[in-house]
Amino acid sequence: MSYASDAIRVGLLGCGTVGGGVLTLLRERSRELASRIGAPLVVGKVLVRDLDRPRVDACERSSLTTSPSEILDDPRIDVVVELMGGEEPAYDYVRRAMTAGKSVVTGNKMLLARHGFDLVGRAEASGVDLAFEASVGGGVPIVRTLRDALSGDSVERFYGIVNGTCNFILSRMQGDSLSFGDALAEAQAKGYAEADPALDVDGHDVAHKAVVLAMLAFSAWVGGEEVPTEGIAAIEAVDHRFADRFGFVIKQLAVGRRRGETIELRVGPSLLPKAHMLANVGSVLNAVFVEGEALGPCLLSGRGAGAMPTAVSVISDLVDVSRRKLTGSPAAPPLALTARPLFPLGDLAARYYLRFTVDDRPGVLADIAGRLGDEGISIEEMVQDGHGARRAEPVSIVMITHQAREASLRRALSRIATADSVRERARVLRIEEP
Amino acid sequence: MSYASDAIRVGLLGCGTVGGGVLTLLRERSRELASRIGAPLVVGKVLVRDLDRPRVDACERSSLTTSPSEILDDPRIDVVVELMGGEEPAYDYVRRAMTAGKSVVTGNKMLLARHGFDLVGRAEASGVDLAFEASVGGGVPIVRTLRDALSGDSVERFYGIVNGTCNFILSRMQGDSLSFGDALAEAQAKGYAEADPALDVDGHDVAHKAVVLAMLAFSAWVGGEEVPTEGIAAIEAVDHRFADRFGFVIKQLAVGRRRGETIELRVGPSLLPKAHMLANVGSVLNAVFVEGEALGPCLLSGRGAGAMPTAVSVISDLVDVSRRKLTGSPAAPPLALTARPLFPLGDLAARYYLRFTVDDRPGVLADIAGRLGDEGISIEEMVQDGHGARRAEPVSIVMITHQAREASLRRALSRIATADSVRERARVLRIEEP
Repeated sequence: MSYASDAIRVGLLGCGTVGGGVLTLLRERSRELASRIGAPLVVGKVLVRDLDRPRVDACERSSLTTSPSEILDDPRIDVVVELMGGEEPAYDYVRRAMTAGKSVVTGNKMLLARHGFDLVGRAEASGVDLAFEASVGGGVPIVRTLRDALSGDSVERFYGIVNGTCNFILSRMQGDSLSFGDALAEAQAKGYAEADPALDVDGHDVAHKAVVLAMLAFSAWVGGEEVPTEGIAAIEAVDHRFADRFGFVIKQLAVGRRRGETIELRVGPSLLPKAHMLANVGSVLNAVFVEGEALGPCLLSGRGAGAMPTAVSVISDLVDVSRRKLTGSPAAPPLALTARPLFPLGDLAARYYLRFTVDDRPGVLADIAGRLGDEGISIEEMVQDGHGARRAEPVSIVMITHQAREASLRRALSRIATADSVRERARVLRIEEP
Repeated sequence: MSYASDAIRVGLLGCGTVGGGVLTLLRERSRELASRIGAPLVVGKVLVRDLDRPRVDACERSSLTTSPSEILDDPRIDVVVELMGGEEPAYDYVRRAMTAGKSVVTGNKMLLARHGFDLVGRAEASGVDLAFEASVGGGVPIVRTLRDALSGDSVERFYGIVNGTCNFILSRMQGDSLSFGDALAEAQAKGYAEADPALDVDGHDVAHKAVVLAMLAFSAWVGGEEVPTEGIAAIEAVDHRFADRFGFVIKQLAVGRRRGETIELRVGPSLLPKAHMLANVGSVLNAVFVEGEALGPCLLSGRGAGAMPTAVSVISDLVDVSRRKLTGSPAAPPLALTARPLFPLGDLAARYYLRFTVDDRPGVLADIAGRLGDEGISIEEMVQDGHGARRAEPVSIVMITHQAREASLRRALSRIATADSVRERARVLRIEEP
């Protein structure tokens, strides 16, 4: 095979952890990449905020710039790789790049979750590629699997463990009975959690990825809506113990499902049966479970974060995009997105895990069960813990309900919350049965 | 988006289970596929042996033919889908199709394992696509993951559970203590095993897939060599019990690993730690575990067989190939295969599971341990079973060795086999530590 003489010139926006990994791989694997693309990949310019910060060896000082226009307005730059994260100025830069006819590779899930519909449309209008394998699941090739491998199928639902920080914390709480605070501190000490872990722990990072997964899995755009999102900070070690007792593990999940013209999409800690493939995805691993109408179940799992796994995803996109550019092929088929409303959570039917913290006195259980029963909710299993200790201490009553409508459950719970003997808001976790 | 007016015309070679699935999906999802490709996919002709056999609804009687030249020599056919299986006449037909400028989509692992090097070269020479997602792992998108998603990485090794029949049998033996024969009979009754299960059970189907995986993972061609292959028929329920006791499960694996200029490639039942992701892949599921230098570990799992999952893979290839054809884009970058010798099994270093069936009398264990020790092999754990029952019955001595060289182990085992008190050939299983 002969190489075309023209190189593909890449402009990199942002040079943090992943950007450094991309530059390292581009240098280490330049020969293989050139052979695959048909021309060498050359790094034109790298946009950074601080020219003097120490960088990876593969980052040449002479390529650094603090001026975005040296990339966005340079006609010699063929492809822009956006790894800055955050909404602005990434959104502005990506639009400018596409308008200038440059294809874009991005790992920015917040950008896609907020402006994916607009950006997909702009890419199509400009005839450029918009590739984003690195935006969900780090090195797990979930984007191309949903986009390409399942192009002949209809994806019915997905369940994703797509935040390594959450999964590490929940795995440590589950396996080693750590408190949430101790598990978080350990994650921070190991570099698995940011100094400000809010975006991860509160579920918003997962919600961004859920929107991206829904784009790919269902060709649905739900970015205009608020994805119901719960974080993991309220989960206690005791919840892991009870979940285990009932045969479940607790995982922070992005759940998506076709529901007629609507899309069920939600983020939060849920109970998964121990035997499910996702239940064994521990520590910082990510995984996405997909069910296709024809395919059946399919699981992809791997490292969800870190410089190198995510850089592998960026490079895979760069190879695809560069090869198309070089051979004059049209951009990849755009996602045919349709804006869809979210399925109302109140209409969800599921089994639920409920933990009540109540005074240890006669009649409390009957009262709770009665108020649940008033809403047509029956109890499948129940455990009362702590009885027999000092009477003044509150006790836990934990229940697994039969299938119930979420709206009914919420009504019952607000009535239960008003009872004298109930000490805290009940902990409610959905039970997933994928 | 406007559709190009020209359709892409497909010729189908073979219309068995998977072919029927492909025709069904082509009909059911024709609109989505046309939108994705930019033109409708039309089935031109379907080559069958018997015109009168009942077929799926989506298979139109008028499209059937028993003459291959109605597909291979028809210039209106753009893409040939080969789902006949077996070496000939598939090899002949695929070559003729490519020579005539038609791209080929195939699910034929035997064909690829025997002629992959030749066919990849012919595809490149003819400027056509040769796509084979359906050849390994049914609906699991392992081919495109290795080819595209990991294009920026160097794959160091893989472990594949790629035969649903074997995995079903081993899972039933493990979980329900069935004998091999009973588990096989059940697999046949459920339609998971062929009437003649030899190709599956003896490991040859897995060996074909191992060769294909090595092409993708290592750009290595080892098809000229004999992949060391063991079947699962000699595994007994007792082996599952002992494996469990030591913390392992038994899986039929395709193992591949870079070893300098050579490729380690082998097929056989092995012990995997229970905690490994592959250990929980049960029943007829397939899974491939890949480790990339930059990516780290990655697992893909799903239905490895059946009409619809495999048809999804065929369709995904068809979409790619058709879109390139329609847009005048060049074929996908060919695999840059290099012929590689196999790593000699004798040089392998591993821990081993050894089960000896011996007379229950003093000195036997000392004798075995001594002969292993003479070859520098030491024992990490040992269990003797059956002692105390009738003295005339043989007993099992089961050992886990420390790391040992396979050549030394084989020498020690041949010497042990000559001992008077040894009743049967020792059962030897490698312990994988992925």
